[in-house]
Amino acid sequence: MTAARLKVFSDSNLKAEVLAILKEGVEPHEILQPAKPVTSVLAKAEKDPSFGLAEVAFGQPDVESIAESENLKWIQISSAGYTRYDTPAFRALVKERGLKVTNSSSVYVEACVQHVLSFMFAHARKLPWGLGSRAANGTSEWNALRSASAIVGAGQKVLIYGYGSIAARLVEVLRTFDVEVVAVRRKPRGDEGVRVVTLEEADGELPLADHVINILPDNADSVGYFDASRLAACKKGSVHYNIGRGSTVDQDALYDALKHGPLEAAWLDVTTPEPLPDEHPLWTLENCYITPHTAGGHQDESMTLVKHFVANFRRYLAGEELKDRIM
Amino acid sequence: MTAARLKVFSDSNLKAEVLAILKEGVEPHEILQPAKPVTSVLAKAEKDPSFGLAEVAFGQPDVESIAESENLKWIQISSAGYTRYDTPAFRALVKERGLKVTNSSSVYVEACVQHVLSFMFAHARKLPWGLGSRAANGTSEWNALRSASAIVGAGQKVLIYGYGSIAARLVEVLRTFDVEVVAVRRKPRGDEGVRVVTLEEADGELPLADHVINILPDNADSVGYFDASRLAACKKGSVHYNIGRGSTVDQDALYDALKHGPLEAAWLDVTTPEPLPDEHPLWTLENCYITPHTAGGHQDESMTLVKHFVANFRRYLAGEELKDRIM
Repeated sequence: MTAARLKVFSDSNLKAEVLAILKEGVEPHEILQPAKPVTSVLAKAEKDPSFGLAEVAFGQPDVESIAESENLKWIQISSAGYTRYDTPAFRALVKERGLKVTNSSSVYVEACVQHVLSFMFAHARKLPWGLGSRAANGTSEWNALRSASAIVGAGQKVLIYGYGSIAARLVEVLRTFDVEVVAVRRKPRGDEGVRVVTLEEADGELPLADHVINILPDNADSVGYFDASRLAACKKGSVHYNIGRGSTVDQDALYDALKHGPLEAAWLDVTTPEPLPDEHPLWTLENCYITPHTAGGHQDESMTLVKHFVANFRRYLAGEELKDRIM
Repeated sequence: MTAARLKVFSDSNLKAEVLAILKEGVEPHEILQPAKPVTSVLAKAEKDPSFGLAEVAFGQPDVESIAESENLKWIQISSAGYTRYDTPAFRALVKERGLKVTNSSSVYVEACVQHVLSFMFAHARKLPWGLGSRAANGTSEWNALRSASAIVGAGQKVLIYGYGSIAARLVEVLRTFDVEVVAVRRKPRGDEGVRVVTLEEADGELPLADHVINILPDNADSVGYFDASRLAACKKGSVHYNIGRGSTVDQDALYDALKHGPLEAAWLDVTTPEPLPDEHPLWTLENCYITPHTAGGHQDESMTLVKHFVANFRRYLAGEELKDRIM
């Protein structure tokens, strides 16, 4: 008896050598590709007629196609964020149809963590200023730059909003810098290995935090979470780092908190919209640093994504627990 | 019986509140200050008539004054580097006169380490590019930036030239990033907790290193150490980070290695001279990043320096071993 050839729909626009690894990884099963490939790992795929044939979908499948599909059993999302799937309607559909949903968060963990670290240390060491300065030793500019430069260390509190694999790894790394770390999670479990508070309790921690790391996902609870009152309650001289979703921050209130205090700076990898329009006031601030949603990106990213999928596909075939399961 | 009041010469130009801590810390002993204060912790002090009265000197005392002094027993240098004292003549003087010499390296360790980390992660995450980009999601620039972004991690080798307290702390931090670390030391001791090779053996490691961290001090052995042949022998795509001394690198050869390979980039906190003149060719390279010798600087630096001196002064009075002793 030979197992039936299972159909895997993959909407990612992969280079030939990466596609070859994907095809080889799922053999003897079959990869179906859309007629029109998507432009990036974050872009939504368009509807494609072959989608209905697939048991497995890997990429950013269109929600309507998922709802219409009769054969689908498992979706692996090719990103860590999953805003377009994180709705009551989609969760109801998943439950009703008994779908499994995984994402690719473990592929992005280290890149996201190191992006946060690049923000924290670039800020502490005043890299943007230093790289633009030709100050001579002993001049007033040089003394000002040296004494503005800082250390991430003892006596400082780091508050991480959103506890998942990125936060867990950040906690591990930050341990060596002697800072106090507190994480914020909707439902603390008690096994996080770090002090975890609820969103309600977090308001008591916020005014004490020197570093606020925002990894909140985008959902009904988090939209506009960092509003004018929370940003005004931040510690004077504190820094806000956002690698979550731009929608979690009220950007007008952020502008005020950067322009008039209490924030010393914001380092954002995400904004609303992306990119911010050229006339957006945040661009005018010298203490607002923005990268264009590149925190998770890394060399050979599509290869890592495909390998992560193939490993999960083997687990799927063997009936084992899937990695990065989110629904 | 009351102990005689001992005289401590301090040439640092300290703010009133820091000077107060120094005076309080050495009481009942006396602080002597020069008529003309120095401009920075790195600047050489000029000769001052009161120097000859001191048993202890804290700062950057002039070598000639040390040679002429009849009362001096201990010098604490207010920096980590000590180029102007690291000569056979000075070492002979120290030996002949039985002087103790300490530096302030432990004051600068964490700031220097975090400066290196800011360089490494800013480079890996392509911060200079990302902070200057407004690329939209899915555009070719965005895909290029995301896929140029990297992770410091498994499969990479970090080679640290100059094993001291900064390297030891770097080894500790880098352990969490799963890289292979090798340190280079004139005389390996075997208790470093990391693989250590001699300067001669290092030439075999250099072509394999992805990250070269240069913390070499400036002395007769190290001047021009990174010459054209060593820079040409570096691994293709590797990065050179220098927080040691500019004199250890042949800058013309560095220019070639950055312009034509094999180096992907250089991140320098030190150059020869400092700052580089505006017409220096290194300024024209997009892959040469320079901060103006600010690696060790940090908020409250002069306070930390003074507290480190006071703690050593207590040890001196008690006849205990001095911290950061270099001669």
